[in-house]
Amino acid sequence: MRATVLEDVGTVRVVEVPDPVLVEPTDAVVRVMLAAVCGSDLWPYRGQEKFTPGDRMGHEWIGIVEDVGAAVGSVRRGDLVLAPFAFADGTCAYCRDGLFTSCPHGGFWGGGHDGGQAEAVRVPFADATLVPVQTDADPVLLRRLLPLTDVMATGVHAITLAGVRPSGTVVVIGDGAVGLCAVLAAKAAGAERILAVGRHRDRGQLAQRLGATDVLDASHSGTAADLLERTGGGAACIAECAGTQSALDLAVTVARPGGTIGSVGVPNGVHSVDLYRFFRHNITLRAGVTPARRYLQTLVEQVLAGTLDPSPVLTCDVPLDEVASAYRAMDERRAIKAVVQTA
Amino acid sequence: MRATVLEDVGTVRVVEVPDPVLVEPTDAVVRVMLAAVCGSDLWPYRGQEKFTPGDRMGHEWIGIVEDVGAAVGSVRRGDLVLAPFAFADGTCAYCRDGLFTSCPHGGFWGGGHDGGQAEAVRVPFADATLVPVQTDADPVLLRRLLPLTDVMATGVHAITLAGVRPSGTVVVIGDGAVGLCAVLAAKAAGAERILAVGRHRDRGQLAQRLGATDVLDASHSGTAADLLERTGGGAACIAECAGTQSALDLAVTVARPGGTIGSVGVPNGVHSVDLYRFFRHNITLRAGVTPARRYLQTLVEQVLAGTLDPSPVLTCDVPLDEVASAYRAMDERRAIKAVVQTA
Repeated sequence: MRATVLEDVGTVRVVEVPDPVLVEPTDAVVRVMLAAVCGSDLWPYRGQEKFTPGDRMGHEWIGIVEDVGAAVGSVRRGDLVLAPFAFADGTCAYCRDGLFTSCPHGGFWGGGHDGGQAEAVRVPFADATLVPVQTDADPVLLRRLLPLTDVMATGVHAITLAGVRPSGTVVVIGDGAVGLCAVLAAKAAGAERILAVGRHRDRGQLAQRLGATDVLDASHSGTAADLLERTGGGAACIAECAGTQSALDLAVTVARPGGTIGSVGVPNGVHSVDLYRFFRHNITLRAGVTPARRYLQTLVEQVLAGTLDPSPVLTCDVPLDEVASAYRAMDERRAIKAVVQTA
Repeated sequence: MRATVLEDVGTVRVVEVPDPVLVEPTDAVVRVMLAAVCGSDLWPYRGQEKFTPGDRMGHEWIGIVEDVGAAVGSVRRGDLVLAPFAFADGTCAYCRDGLFTSCPHGGFWGGGHDGGQAEAVRVPFADATLVPVQTDADPVLLRRLLPLTDVMATGVHAITLAGVRPSGTVVVIGDGAVGLCAVLAAKAAGAERILAVGRHRDRGQLAQRLGATDVLDASHSGTAADLLERTGGGAACIAECAGTQSALDLAVTVARPGGTIGSVGVPNGVHSVDLYRFFRHNITLRAGVTPARRYLQTLVEQVLAGTLDPSPVLTCDVPLDEVASAYRAMDERRAIKAVVQTA
């Protein structure tokens, strides 16, 4: 089958690899229908994160079950299934607490495991990992479901960590797919005031369409002061969705005393936080990779019910063989999120 | 009257200053009976924190009301009163949320305000700040009450921030007065396993007397591994009561995935945290100066009921004129906490 690998900094390629097969009785093999390129795929692509040449790529995908091991009970051949960006055994103490991303037997798609930007994937712990979707594989619906596997779940995680409540106020920092999904999640959580901070005019407009009440330009030097003024001295809830030093610094600056920062961006080049300000004003930092499996079932129900549609974050489509152009479009910020047509 | 001032690094002196008088109708003047020297007094004393020569010292004190302004209603001349280490107006949005230490009209004793290591103190916002104690000024009771003003309230804050629950496990880092009080607070919160980490044998013994189930030596290179083993892979709750880089690093290392660090030590020389570990394992950092006024009433009731006695952390007594020897004893770690007899 064909699969995307990272050959070198700036070079992804679609190569022939062996078809995945069942190894453990708890495995499934899934034929991928749609995959996506994630902002975090760009870190190794840009050489900002370690990788091994030949690493498989892609942790966001949706597909059809092709084969299941003898011990798999919750999905069957032919089922439309979603997977979170991390697989997990579902039985350990962390999984029982909903912290699937800390499962000692779990892992992330790609790298040494199968990647989603490919024709098929071997899925360990299929019962715990896969979420069957009881519907036809309608193309419009697939595009609404695909973002749940990572960015939409991560937006929800940011809003959850930040403790956003009905009629509350939240500052969302970052206008990537995660930040935009956090705006959607904040709206769904009942936030009345959603202040979105980004760097791109078109994404700001999309943020507004998705529910942002205020859109601010992060590259403007007066943004922190503007946010402090608009929130009457700082926000109680901040969703940090970029993972950069400047995003975290802005979060700390605009947090109201007693406030909470939910930080879901993969920390990249973040080396320090102003701990004294945390201490002086009782600020809470809740950082965390999203245990997406925890949120998937509810999000799927919302999409099927027609109350949630994160598909506007998908702004570019390429066939699998042209995956390199999708990386370039995202690297150059021409696309918010690229979809890879694998089937 | 006599008051302690910081003249230079390493030099505190008792000098004659004008008697405090009522300035605002919301003021009280309190005659101090007992004061204490705090670990955080040592930061400016050691030149590790900025100060202005002549700054008043002392933020832990208990005394008798001598005079009240016309607008004061909750305390009367002759009342035995406690004050938290920060005063606050009691009416602003932060005070109403219990975040007294972020009150825009509040402040900390000492520096440009009156200090507690003196014969008397002018108290702004007396109604909001002072807690009357309905009892005689019995010397044994005074010693049990004095630590509530800062270190005992801070121990409770650490345990509260860390989210300690009945029958839970907590690691307490730091064997200063705050760490020892956090052990007491953890016991009171119903923790079953209290692992105390410090550097002094005698304090470890005291920690055990106060409720620690395990005592570990922070200076031992294997302490982190030992803690991970004793907690089965990390603790869900960590109370960081030192404020140093090594204490915070240890806290991050021994936090269980999904765990919470309550950090109450004044950050001193702390410049970095391993954010990636926070992110990778959904760890929460809740740092904060203690809004002591929030806890005082309950703590006073516990002391009066005989269920709480933090006085064992007071290990040295000096008259006001010899306050310099108390600073030396604490600086040289000969005393855990020194009491200054001001009356």
